[in-house]
Amino acid sequence: MRTTAGPHLLPHLPLVRGNGVALHQQLFDGLRRAILGRVLRPGGRVPSTRALAQELGVSRLTVLTAYDQLLHEGYLEGRAGAGTFVSGALPDDALHATPLRRTRAPNAPNATNATGAATPSSGTVRDDASPGATSGRREDRGLRPFRLSLPALDEFPRATWARLVSRHARALTPAMMAYGLPGGLGVLREAVAEHLRTSRAVRCEADQVLITSGSQAGLRLCAAVLLRHGDVVAVEEPGYPGARSAFTAAGARLAPVPVDDEGMDVAGLASLGARVRAACVTPSHQYPLGVSMSAARRLALLEWAERHGSWVIEDDYDSEYRYVSRPLGALQGVDAAGRVIYVGTFSKVLFPALRVGYLVVPASLRDAFFEARDAFDIFSPTLYQLALADFIREGHFVRHLRRMRTLYHGRRDALLDGLARHCAASITVHNAEAGLHVSTWLRDGMSDVALVRRMQERRLSATALSTCYMGAAARSGLLLGFGGSNERQLRAATRTLGELLASDAS
Amino acid sequence: MRTTAGPHLLPHLPLVRGNGVALHQQLFDGLRRAILGRVLRPGGRVPSTRALAQELGVSRLTVLTAYDQLLHEGYLEGRAGAGTFVSGALPDDALHATPLRRTRAPNAPNATNATGAATPSSGTVRDDASPGATSGRREDRGLRPFRLSLPALDEFPRATWARLVSRHARALTPAMMAYGLPGGLGVLREAVAEHLRTSRAVRCEADQVLITSGSQAGLRLCAAVLLRHGDVVAVEEPGYPGARSAFTAAGARLAPVPVDDEGMDVAGLASLGARVRAACVTPSHQYPLGVSMSAARRLALLEWAERHGSWVIEDDYDSEYRYVSRPLGALQGVDAAGRVIYVGTFSKVLFPALRVGYLVVPASLRDAFFEARDAFDIFSPTLYQLALADFIREGHFVRHLRRMRTLYHGRRDALLDGLARHCAASITVHNAEAGLHVSTWLRDGMSDVALVRRMQERRLSATALSTCYMGAAARSGLLLGFGGSNERQLRAATRTLGELLASDAS
Repeated sequence: MRTTAGPHLLPHLPLVRGNGVALHQQLFDGLRRAILGRVLRPGGRVPSTRALAQELGVSRLTVLTAYDQLLHEGYLEGRAGAGTFVSGALPDDALHATPLRRTRAPNAPNATNATGAATPSSGTVRDDASPGATSGRREDRGLRPFRLSLPALDEFPRATWARLVSRHARALTPAMMAYGLPGGLGVLREAVAEHLRTSRAVRCEADQVLITSGSQAGLRLCAAVLLRHGDVVAVEEPGYPGARSAFTAAGARLAPVPVDDEGMDVAGLASLGARVRAACVTPSHQYPLGVSMSAARRLALLEWAERHGSWVIEDDYDSEYRYVSRPLGALQGVDAAGRVIYVGTFSKVLFPALRVGYLVVPASLRDAFFEARDAFDIFSPTLYQLALADFIREGHFVRHLRRMRTLYHGRRDALLDGLARHCAASITVHNAEAGLHVSTWLRDGMSDVALVRRMQERRLSATALSTCYMGAAARSGLLLGFGGSNERQLRAATRTLGELLASDAS
Repeated sequence: MRTTAGPHLLPHLPLVRGNGVALHQQLFDGLRRAILGRVLRPGGRVPSTRALAQELGVSRLTVLTAYDQLLHEGYLEGRAGAGTFVSGALPDDALHATPLRRTRAPNAPNATNATGAATPSSGTVRDDASPGATSGRREDRGLRPFRLSLPALDEFPRATWARLVSRHARALTPAMMAYGLPGGLGVLREAVAEHLRTSRAVRCEADQVLITSGSQAGLRLCAAVLLRHGDVVAVEEPGYPGARSAFTAAGARLAPVPVDDEGMDVAGLASLGARVRAACVTPSHQYPLGVSMSAARRLALLEWAERHGSWVIEDDYDSEYRYVSRPLGALQGVDAAGRVIYVGTFSKVLFPALRVGYLVVPASLRDAFFEARDAFDIFSPTLYQLALADFIREGHFVRHLRRMRTLYHGRRDALLDGLARHCAASITVHNAEAGLHVSTWLRDGMSDVALVRRMQERRLSATALSTCYMGAAARSGLLLGFGGSNERQLRAATRTLGELLASDAS
């Protein structure tokens, strides 16, 4: 590959050290120019990260980071086993592409729209991000401001969706009414695999995709297949309560591993030794703190899994809605040893009551996952699989995601604005870079649980950060969802929260 | 109750011993006359089984049997806690009612139509009756003749269903698109509870009903809630492979208990002692042999459960399609101690790809079941729950079941006729009284597994009886489904099977 792609490519990749622009950024720009300028032809293979790194005398991480962003923005696409290629179909507005991080204008055309839009897992805030998995959800199913896990249901293209559902309901054949396969309908598995390959750099074929009843079901299946009774599974601390309940329901024991600004502390994980059968992580947007796992940590985690023959469960729950900086591609895409199980859901990109998610599993585990699904509930309803496959193939999915990215960006800014205006004395924003919630710290000495209870009396539904800890909470804070409320509602809600805090203080 | 209902009722119940008509039969006829003659008014309460038994000097079982049939045929309805009442709405053709067992004419009007029609669990042949649960199902998803678990998909009122689905898809509100409760939608739970009360004599309120993703999911939830890792669960031998896979997936150990002509050998179960946490039975129509559990065995089983504090899982999978004799009501309806979990599904009454079933759980277990559902996949898709509730409430469900009973009766007769004509030398019918499959014995020395394999080559999809045994199979036989093929197809299939058998013999 070096010999073919290298020579004519090199002139377009003039890397200058110490000019204030990161090397991976310069490399991204150069490769993007080469693609838009047709130096790299659509469908053409690009050098492997290792080859190009050698050629340019830069680290493989630098190339990996640039490739990930190009994959993320749709200029490149990965094909399982075959390598990385220039996209056949470039983002429709690629010629005017401006990476999102360079602008915050809600409606500025930018390439990430086109590609983020092509991602099933986009903005899929956890299936059940409510604190204490069950109880929280049961008590508050509402659509209240700050509710986690809630997409903009009022903005969903209901008429289009109803048309597709009605079309397939009328056309249901006996074959489509009979038993289906545990893996799901081929047409949907193909659509999911293609989107994950092109927009999340996931390395998969359709037959590695397993359609689930949402990501909670996906995590529960991982527990059933990967963990025997009494096995130890490492979870992030703080972390996602729903994953913990899925693992403990399978009789597994939880080993909390601290999270810092680079994600799960892999050194701490490694110190637990070989007895850890699996580690569950949220690399793109850590739940609940929001940090992105660093590339170094990602490689260390994969190395850990390979060395111990353990598994990594990648819960890629809202990797697409990013408002600052660029996300890395999926951890799964960098996994050469087939140790990663990738978990995603449509609950937030479309709507929770759809109950459709997916897993991408290593070929070696496919049959085991099918058997487990079979023993659980056999397969998912067929009608929604048919409608969803059309929704994706006919481009509605892409358009919806693009609209949502702009919409959520505005809602997020409204929330941050309201917090700064009304709550600054008690609440510090910790992370608001991505997803559908903002993670915050409370002033020392304040109890987040008590505050959340008081907020409920005012019909506000936040989540207490401390409920995401297995052990003693290091910090108290609020997780504030902004997906399900419009900007006016969010401003009003922050005002109400400010009043609450003021009355507490007095 | 005795004093009120007794006096004027007695003259209508002249029981004559030794006239060749069983006492419960005479009692059924007398009570039915009293209801049709308005001696017992619609909505009026009837004496308790115990009171009437004392009054008439007959055993409680005699009264129980008569009441069960009246409940089954819609003349009586049970109300949880309150007792048993004369139906407000009698079967529309009750005045011409002739119990089904008295006629085999496919289109003779009879009361069981009206009532059978009112039963969600009707004809729900197992969710996955294929041999070897997983493998069998994966290899053969077809619509081939003799396929088990297959309803008459071509006869389903698709247009009506599509209309209901489209109506609700267009009207989806944000609240209906958001997260739902693990128990399911109240409107559907109400509809299911009412049908089970009136047509299956199940004692339940809507809040005991939990909507599942089909009966496999229901069994898996039972395993999660009732069985700890290593616990022993008693299963029928021969029995349903899907149930066994659900229990073993939860880490439970299986204790096979032989089945005879009265159902599971409860004495054998009792001999296993207190260490058995639960017993899973199919009392209405034993899977696979087809026998109905005797009333004496039912009471003994309930007594066993109460004595040991164990649980009974009643898999009431196709209790409504009966062609000979009368079924008893659900075991759950006789359970005073709250030890029975009732499992049902709509997969066969409507269609498998619907993926909707239900559980009726004792109030004491409700929260535990909700938590388990929450950890598995939270809740079922909302749209189908809405459409299904309307399908039941608007009477489509009743009409469809009525049509299906007649249709399946004809298909069963066509199968029996074809077997007698073409296969009598090698195949003996063991049970064809109910449900959507016929259980048969093969001539001594014939291997059912080998025969099933040869049948597959001829595109026939039977199930080998021996695959339903955990231990060595006592007999070899074929389970032949007749729900999914019309009479012509079934005649052709039996002809093909006859040719196969002849070529084997030669």
